[in-house]
Amino acid sequence: MRYSEHANPVITLTAGPVNCYPEVLRGLGRTVLYDYDPAFQLFYENVVGKAQKAMRLSSKPVILHGEPVLGLEAAAASLITPDDVVLNLVSGVYGKGFGYWAKRYSPHLLEIEVPYNEAIDPQAVADMLKAHPEITIVSVCHHDTPSGTINPIDEIGALVSAHGGYLIVDAVSSFAGMKTHPDDCKADIYVTGPGKCLGAPPALTILGVSERAWAKMKANKAAPRASMLSIVDWENAWSRDQPFPFTPAVAEINGLDAALDLYLNEGPEAVWARHALTAKAMRAGVVAMGLSIWAASDKIASPTTTSVRTPEGVDEKTIREAARSRYGVVFSSGRSETLGKLTRIGHMGPTAQPIYAIAALTAFGGALNAAGQKLAVGKGVEAAMAVIDADA
Amino acid sequence: MRYSEHANPVITLTAGPVNCYPEVLRGLGRTVLYDYDPAFQLFYENVVGKAQKAMRLSSKPVILHGEPVLGLEAAAASLITPDDVVLNLVSGVYGKGFGYWAKRYSPHLLEIEVPYNEAIDPQAVADMLKAHPEITIVSVCHHDTPSGTINPIDEIGALVSAHGGYLIVDAVSSFAGMKTHPDDCKADIYVTGPGKCLGAPPALTILGVSERAWAKMKANKAAPRASMLSIVDWENAWSRDQPFPFTPAVAEINGLDAALDLYLNEGPEAVWARHALTAKAMRAGVVAMGLSIWAASDKIASPTTTSVRTPEGVDEKTIREAARSRYGVVFSSGRSETLGKLTRIGHMGPTAQPIYAIAALTAFGGALNAAGQKLAVGKGVEAAMAVIDADA
Amino acid sequence: MRYSEHANPVITLTAGPVNCYPEVLRGLGRTVLYDYDPAFQLFYENVVGKAQKAMRLSSKPVILHGEPVLGLEAAAASLITPDDVVLNLVSGVYGKGFGYWAKRYSPHLLEIEVPYNEAIDPQAVADMLKAHPEITIVSVCHHDTPSGTINPIDEIGALVSAHGGYLIVDAVSSFAGMKTHPDDCKADIYVTGPGKCLGAPPALTILGVSERAWAKMKANKAAPRASMLSIVDWENAWSRDQPFPFTPAVAEINGLDAALDLYLNEGPEAVWARHALTAKAMRAGVVAMGLSIWAASDKIASPTTTSVRTPEGVDEKTIREAARSRYGVVFSSGRSETLGKLTRIGHMGPTAQPIYAIAALTAFGGALNAAGQKLAVGKGVEAAMAVIDADA
Amino acid sequence: MRYSEHANPVITLTAGPVNCYPEVLRGLGRTVLYDYDPAFQLFYENVVGKAQKAMRLSSKPVILHGEPVLGLEAAAASLITPDDVVLNLVSGVYGKGFGYWAKRYSPHLLEIEVPYNEAIDPQAVADMLKAHPEITIVSVCHHDTPSGTINPIDEIGALVSAHGGYLIVDAVSSFAGMKTHPDDCKADIYVTGPGKCLGAPPALTILGVSERAWAKMKANKAAPRASMLSIVDWENAWSRDQPFPFTPAVAEINGLDAALDLYLNEGPEAVWARHALTAKAMRAGVVAMGLSIWAASDKIASPTTTSVRTPEGVDEKTIREAARSRYGVVFSSGRSETLGKLTRIGHMGPTAQPIYAIAALTAFGGALNAAGQKLAVGKGVEAAMAVIDADA
Repeated sequence: MRYSEHANPVITLTAGPVNCYPEVLRGLGRTVLYDYDPAFQLFYENVVGKAQKAMRLSSKPVILHGEPVLGLEAAAASLITPDDVVLNLVSGVYGKGFGYWAKRYSPHLLEIEVPYNEAIDPQAVADMLKAHPEITIVSVCHHDTPSGTINPIDEIGALVSAHGGYLIVDAVSSFAGMKTHPDDCKADIYVTGPGKCLGAPPALTILGVSERAWAKMKANKAAPRASMLSIVDWENAWSRDQPFPFTPAVAEINGLDAALDLYLNEGPEAVWARHALTAKAMRAGVVAMGLSIWAASDKIASPTTTSVRTPEGVDEKTIREAARSRYGVVFSSGRSETLGKLTRIGHMGPTAQPIYAIAALTAFGGALNAAGQKLAVGKGVEAAMAVIDADA
Repeated sequence: MRYSEHANPVITLTAGPVNCYPEVLRGLGRTVLYDYDPAFQLFYENVVGKAQKAMRLSSKPVILHGEPVLGLEAAAASLITPDDVVLNLVSGVYGKGFGYWAKRYSPHLLEIEVPYNEAIDPQAVADMLKAHPEITIVSVCHHDTPSGTINPIDEIGALVSAHGGYLIVDAVSSFAGMKTHPDDCKADIYVTGPGKCLGAPPALTILGVSERAWAKMKANKAAPRASMLSIVDWENAWSRDQPFPFTPAVAEINGLDAALDLYLNEGPEAVWARHALTAKAMRAGVVAMGLSIWAASDKIASPTTTSVRTPEGVDEKTIREAARSRYGVVFSSGRSETLGKLTRIGHMGPTAQPIYAIAALTAFGGALNAAGQKLAVGKGVEAAMAVIDADA
Repeated sequence: MRYSEHANPVITLTAGPVNCYPEVLRGLGRTVLYDYDPAFQLFYENVVGKAQKAMRLSSKPVILHGEPVLGLEAAAASLITPDDVVLNLVSGVYGKGFGYWAKRYSPHLLEIEVPYNEAIDPQAVADMLKAHPEITIVSVCHHDTPSGTINPIDEIGALVSAHGGYLIVDAVSSFAGMKTHPDDCKADIYVTGPGKCLGAPPALTILGVSERAWAKMKANKAAPRASMLSIVDWENAWSRDQPFPFTPAVAEINGLDAALDLYLNEGPEAVWARHALTAKAMRAGVVAMGLSIWAASDKIASPTTTSVRTPEGVDEKTIREAARSRYGVVFSSGRSETLGKLTRIGHMGPTAQPIYAIAALTAFGGALNAAGQKLAVGKGVEAAMAVIDADA
Repeated sequence: MRYSEHANPVITLTAGPVNCYPEVLRGLGRTVLYDYDPAFQLFYENVVGKAQKAMRLSSKPVILHGEPVLGLEAAAASLITPDDVVLNLVSGVYGKGFGYWAKRYSPHLLEIEVPYNEAIDPQAVADMLKAHPEITIVSVCHHDTPSGTINPIDEIGALVSAHGGYLIVDAVSSFAGMKTHPDDCKADIYVTGPGKCLGAPPALTILGVSERAWAKMKANKAAPRASMLSIVDWENAWSRDQPFPFTPAVAEINGLDAALDLYLNEGPEAVWARHALTAKAMRAGVVAMGLSIWAASDKIASPTTTSVRTPEGVDEKTIREAARSRYGVVFSSGRSETLGKLTRIGHMGPTAQPIYAIAALTAFGGALNAAGQKLAVGKGVEAAMAVIDADA
């Protein structure tokens, strides 16, 4: 063992929290202003404006002051009523999990569930909506992070919109790492956060909310109010002229501001491109080493996380432990149903750079070889390099 | 106008968020580790250990990952059941507010309410407990920040304990600024946070929880679980060997670690002493200028915030605006019932230094004079100096 | 004693090093780039461009990578030859000190020396230049910091220019705190640095160099080359296309960039105004307490440092020690001839804010009273407030 | 081109300036104290004490406040007199360069010069010392950075000591990256700095000075005094009780303190080991790709920088440009005689981690392949991995 598990690793390549851009880390250290100070209120309005621009949204997004599970729970609590019929689309652990929240607020839950290495087929959604005209809300996880797979939310959103339903989208780990925006998928509540592809810490959630979602939530008397779970309390908090329902996470807003500046200044298309290229190089390298990508097809493989199927006979935990102790490189495990079956190699934000795919492949291959596999790491690297160089 | 309201002020003297210690601001910029990284899990355990030491607590405190309203709401949601009879002690806006949360979880709410510039009399509590043996839970705000007054929680706690009830204490803006600890007041749930006297940002809450409170909450099937509002989910999260229920606010934990180091290294008694001396100098100066302290007596005036009664005929908002625009100094207003009636001058954490009392008095007096008053600012300063020098 | 001399003070009000703007402290923590990296070379060119803009200079200034004594020594070593006749103008310790460097490079040194609380009279310079047509170089310290007095360099510069001489100006502690620029005084070498009114750390020096000074230095075979003391080696180093003679102080350049942004964004005139107002308030307060300003007249008193004459019978050191130990406020002593005779209260960069004049007056007055004086601190504060309010 | 030369690169692997440890970057942002503040004077003494411990030195080292060329120039200027006979040992560009400084102070210069990919043979030194008993000073560069080669300074130092001469050692880019200390080589002046293997910025130099070197410098009337080039002025500046000759670079001292803490806490032996392993992996990979190490033998190849000979027919500049534009990885060129003949891949401080050798090999190989070579990058990676794994 070279790297103690009690000392910081060398490179963190996880599915989040990710290490942050240095500019964001410095942003976190800005002066903490009083939340009622007019300078802070203006600053907050500007940060919301930058988030709106990044999300290409026609209305002001809402920032809630806890990590994205807050946004997802709050969305369920605020939008879903016992009269709603919810269709929850499940292609992974996180999609499945949303169903439990949905069920808390309505007894009427339908699900389409596919194997956790596949994506939802829009045709199945169309069929379900046709068969169940009573469906009022559809929920879907865009990037089911524990699987590293992407659902076709823009196609699904068009169907839900035509059906007249409300759409809740979990885009926490895809937004800012690929082309996805609330309006593109006609989301009514679109939940994301700064702790993944924006390269900031994980203590806020950002919601895109449609006009009709606002109306439905405000009409919902059971929607949380005077509560940490409230969305409606925050509707106008973006405005410099409005008080905050409770104290915003000032330092996190400072960090988010820096992250949004980086994203907008680099250019979203450029950011997406380096996520995509890093992922493509990763997959090429993984396959060339004789391993399998967890996602059933390249088309649904995430550009922000590459999930690699654990080879037969290998204890997945030993791979991550070896990668960390031998090379100082940290990966993520699966979660729940995918735990032990795959390793997740994140390339989000600052590590969405092809050179980190090389470091990842080498550490991952080396760790498997330490576990007795006989992988040709060099071949993996060369395959990844071929992808990178083809793009140069 | 010298200072634009859109530029940062020079000195922030508020009741929180306060500007942070520079060491904490730098702490916020530490590397963001993956929450499942063993180095982070050990670090988290150590931070909880430092919080335990600072709180002089026999058990591990719980950190929840949102500002202290989360801790208070979660405490109500987790501990209070419809069978409970809650006695809520009200000496200010925040105490009153807790009653609304309590009522959400039990219909049986009793209150003792005193004018918002007074403190709860322990004898009244004793009488009430005697008259209502059915009371199971008592809730009290230690420092009702919108009033700048302190309740005698240690005496109250002794009564509640003798009665056999559970005690919920809001010590958000008193802990670390004066001598107060969960065990001193026999609290069952003691809620504080880093954003006041610890001089860190406001995005976490720290709870001291007694053994029997754990038992009651775990037995409460309605207590939030799989929710942002859950306390019970986090019971063992302090341990390096246990997973987090959801992603902790990594950067805030980094900042909290720095804040706890500062507090423990300076020495709690020394920290309390400079809060107390700053407050004493403030009060002497305020009175010498011919103004009134909001608190009915010095004995109940907070050592962490000085609330000054707005003179007749003055619009309180104009005081704060003038202090900021003329001198670059920011104060807090009252809240709800106290709004307009008082100005709060905070001296918490890094600004709990006597020299800031001088800056505060001058800016406050100058702002009132700009509003047409004829205050002898020099006399105020001299009175404050006399207090400071008497302690030298 | 309240504040240990081994712990950081609360407020630093010195004549430099000053504590830095928080933005500058964060700037210092930016990524350290390789000096040959094209991104750094472009960045360096941009920083020089910002310095040029701040100095309102027609040519590129030169940054040398050590504190301003390097700039002053290098100027003497590079510009002065044994054939030069140098007129050194002395109104204080630093002006006197430059004469020793001048003498190292030429035996022909003339001086005009006035008492160290007065300023050079331009008429005396005119007379001297007339009497000594052989004078080729004139040197003057703009703000002789150990005295807190300002020399009329623009008038002096006009005379030197008419005479055809070269002018060396030490503007280290005046530039960016008042209206002064190399071209305004027709300086041939104008030496300043970031560690005073720009609110950055003290490890660089910035030189404005005239065309003819470049020509004279390059013609001087004894001018340092391949040396830390060289100016000529750095002539073209500002250009992204030119190599550095040796490694620049990358982190300091990062900090300087942040400081120049602050200065240019706030607006030089606004920055000068708050320095001037703070100084004016200081002086009014000092006089109202019954103390004397060191400078012979208000007209020559520095807007960036207020020097207060030590009252009879008081050991100056005890004042500073008491201010620090009782109130946590740090002042500067005099230097050499002025040591013990005055205390220097700096208001440079981030502390050039009137509210800090109040803190300074109080701590200074309190410290003197602790030494047995009977100063009316309140009167001092009120006099300062009157100045501040008159400007509101 | 993927990476603009005007945006920061992804990974900097140069021979210095290196990117700094994050802890050091944060250290640079600490409060800037007044240099005469007792807290700063104590801090400075402590930092010198940590440097002493890191250098395993019996006396206090001296910090000069400019990059290490200042230390080298000052050493020559202070120690060498016209009566001295200097033997300058030359195995590269930096060693050669010191001769020019030596010649400035004494006309009596002897040199042993070997090809710039070789190291000085101690036997040659022994022979020279025997042939020239008049030699009083020997100078040697430990790690001639532009070559990436190491001279046997401990053996050389023993010979010089036996001869009774003074030894000047340039250990700027070796100290803290391998086992080397002033006493190990019996150096009289040992020059290093924080900008290489300590992972801090390049604006200070640290000198180990022997008792007899102090005596010789102090006896040398021509040694710089009242000058940026002075060493003797700083002899006692380490003491909290002594004034500084001029203003120290406060922020850089803050950064150095953090760097020394990291070095001492990780453990020097552990730090050296990861430098050595990274270099060994680099060399194995380079050779396996069919390229040549510049150093004539592995034994003299630096553990802190790997210099790779430019293949025939390749313009070296295009390699570095391609590595940066394609992969975002920055390397160093050669200097003077070695410019164009080799590329320097640095692994100092934070990048002295084996996983960065993989990134370096891939980027370097990829860049050469982009220039038309046909390197087997995969073989290079596998060879490097074999080295790394053998050590696990």
